[in-house]
Amino acid sequence: MPSISKRGVDMPPSPIRKLVPIADEAKARGVKVYHLNIGQPDIHTPEVAIDAVKNIDRNILEYSHSAGLLEYRKKLTQYYKKFGIDINTDDIMVTTGGSEAFMFAFFCCFNPGDEIIIPEPFYANYSGFATATGINIKPITSKFEDGFSLPPIEEFEKLITSKTKGIFICNPNNPTGYLYSQEELNQLREIVLKNDLYLLSDEVYREFCYDDYDHISALNLEGLEDNVVLIDSVSKRYSECGIRIGALVSRNKQVIASAMKFAQARLSPPLLGQIAACASLEAADDYSEMVYNEYLGRRNVLVEGLNKIPGVRSLVPKGAFYTMTKLPVEDSDHFCQWILGEFQYENQTVMMAPGSGFYSSRYLGKDEVRIAYVLNEDDLKKALIVIEKALEAYPGKKTL
Amino acid sequence: MPSISKRGVDMPPSPIRKLVPIADEAKARGVKVYHLNIGQPDIHTPEVAIDAVKNIDRNILEYSHSAGLLEYRKKLTQYYKKFGIDINTDDIMVTTGGSEAFMFAFFCCFNPGDEIIIPEPFYANYSGFATATGINIKPITSKFEDGFSLPPIEEFEKLITSKTKGIFICNPNNPTGYLYSQEELNQLREIVLKNDLYLLSDEVYREFCYDDYDHISALNLEGLEDNVVLIDSVSKRYSECGIRIGALVSRNKQVIASAMKFAQARLSPPLLGQIAACASLEAADDYSEMVYNEYLGRRNVLVEGLNKIPGVRSLVPKGAFYTMTKLPVEDSDHFCQWILGEFQYENQTVMMAPGSGFYSSRYLGKDEVRIAYVLNEDDLKKALIVIEKALEAYPGKKTL
Repeated sequence: MPSISKRGVDMPPSPIRKLVPIADEAKARGVKVYHLNIGQPDIHTPEVAIDAVKNIDRNILEYSHSAGLLEYRKKLTQYYKKFGIDINTDDIMVTTGGSEAFMFAFFCCFNPGDEIIIPEPFYANYSGFATATGINIKPITSKFEDGFSLPPIEEFEKLITSKTKGIFICNPNNPTGYLYSQEELNQLREIVLKNDLYLLSDEVYREFCYDDYDHISALNLEGLEDNVVLIDSVSKRYSECGIRIGALVSRNKQVIASAMKFAQARLSPPLLGQIAACASLEAADDYSEMVYNEYLGRRNVLVEGLNKIPGVRSLVPKGAFYTMTKLPVEDSDHFCQWILGEFQYENQTVMMAPGSGFYSSRYLGKDEVRIAYVLNEDDLKKALIVIEKALEAYPGKKTL
Repeated sequence: MPSISKRGVDMPPSPIRKLVPIADEAKARGVKVYHLNIGQPDIHTPEVAIDAVKNIDRNILEYSHSAGLLEYRKKLTQYYKKFGIDINTDDIMVTTGGSEAFMFAFFCCFNPGDEIIIPEPFYANYSGFATATGINIKPITSKFEDGFSLPPIEEFEKLITSKTKGIFICNPNNPTGYLYSQEELNQLREIVLKNDLYLLSDEVYREFCYDDYDHISALNLEGLEDNVVLIDSVSKRYSECGIRIGALVSRNKQVIASAMKFAQARLSPPLLGQIAACASLEAADDYSEMVYNEYLGRRNVLVEGLNKIPGVRSLVPKGAFYTMTKLPVEDSDHFCQWILGEFQYENQTVMMAPGSGFYSSRYLGKDEVRIAYVLNEDDLKKALIVIEKALEAYPGKKTL
């Protein structure tokens, strides 16, 4: 039998792979599972997007332009303008989800063996994209105790070698909910310029910033026109993860020209998804407001509830819809399996993502879980009760 | 300014990149351009597919399973059964177009630096997927004079080194229209088994086999269960290139498990496209028959017409909807630019794909063009007249 490639072997599996069959078994036993593990919101997609799909007036579902429908890119420039970001249609490459934008960025900006620095905990699939493209991630730990703020810039400097080609941030952050300040971004700007690095910025949660905190886009950092590559996606914003429409945005013409070659090799991004995404940009402001208020309410219910459970600690996320929560357990991988497989409260249980999957450094995150507040407030309250009761019963509790 | 990666530089641009602006200028001058260069059929998508999209009954356009909707994979197993291919839902990974299936196969089966042998001329984007994933293509030339049949197996053996990890075929072939015989596939079977190679088989044109020739799938070659990886796509079959739905199919469990990790990293294939593809499988047999007869008619008109033009030679393609045509010119790259930019006949011209873009070996294909018969018979006839008149006027004609 021919062997699997090294990268095929090294490719990290999904951090919740062990949980899925256990959750399936729980459901088969009739247990209600609250899914706090995933970024699939339960909020409805804008009606205008569904209607655009329903009213499609085409006989042929043909290829679109490799960089995406011009009409959609034009509307995107207007969308970005609303957020104070001034870019042209030529700076935008429409991609198959944010995932493909990551892949294009990694392909175009880095050679196999190059290093990129990413504050951890970080979105687990970054590791997958890096493994696929031969890039080495150098993690730099942001700490719960520091509110998951940007690690001191000296820590970045210590990691920079001749192989370092980029810094990658997620802002607002998945999984921590942290939002970088102007001061932190200015620090990154300095180090990026000094070392001629790319700054990749995943800003898919741009519109989820709470408590009057402003989102500052990396695209608006002065003098970084050739350094910044933005990763974007409509998935969470309009609750349309399945349409697979994202974007790579950069003012660096060489990056766009190079990405275009990768885009042409795969022909075009999904046509139907672009139709839905294009219409979504026309969704009335009250859709965004409804979504925003819904997440804000959920965040407050969840964080307040978590911090009332003995030994549990959650920061107040400034953005996105996740919180990296401290649990009074020795091994959250075990706890997440146990709660699904061996525990239930009034025939209910919860699925959470173990913290270790979000750290590249070993042994970190063992007392953390990522909780996504993608359920309605009632369900969140029920899930909180389950977590509290489970921690009371769990035999692997941390000895304090 | 940070530099572009080596693979970003090396990535081959689209073979028709030079032609696109010239064609745009021609259109701007009011010249009608017949597009014989692309694989985008003008045939309508099955109504049942468009209707499925129009009748979508969902409030949330959510992620689907990373391997694709189970319902769609179930229907695919029935589809394959119709063609005598017996596989399970677990053997199928639904991908974002055939393109992603190529990428997954290259990622999982080969390491950077590995070599794969591909008969040339071949679909130009294979080079792009190889460059992106660090694979070296070793071309083996199939010749017009031999009807573009499989090169002698000794030629394959000469190319096999310790770095050779696979053989890649496209059957029926784009760009030649050749269909491999049972005997040729048996020869490939032997060499694949003997050298423990992967056999990647692109069979997206399976249903386009003319003149009672049967398509033989690599999946039905005995004893190659662990070697064969099939690349598939609904794009051409149902004239729905824009929905971006393909598949990777293999009985090798390790390949599927490895591909699953890449699939999970990009979360899911497009939901709306899967809905259209799933419905397309329900299209009445008379849709497939209509499409088949349409292409058969077009092929006959085109090939007969081409061979009537002095100095032009086309084989009769047994499958797909392309023909690799010999023209009496020294440099078809120049001819394809010239006919668009400097020639018109009754205010019409044609766009064709220069042959050189389909060869990995340099200097080959200079007197060939790929012509796609994706226009109706009337337009093909008009395009044929343009080609004839152009060759009469062309100053770069081959001296015979």
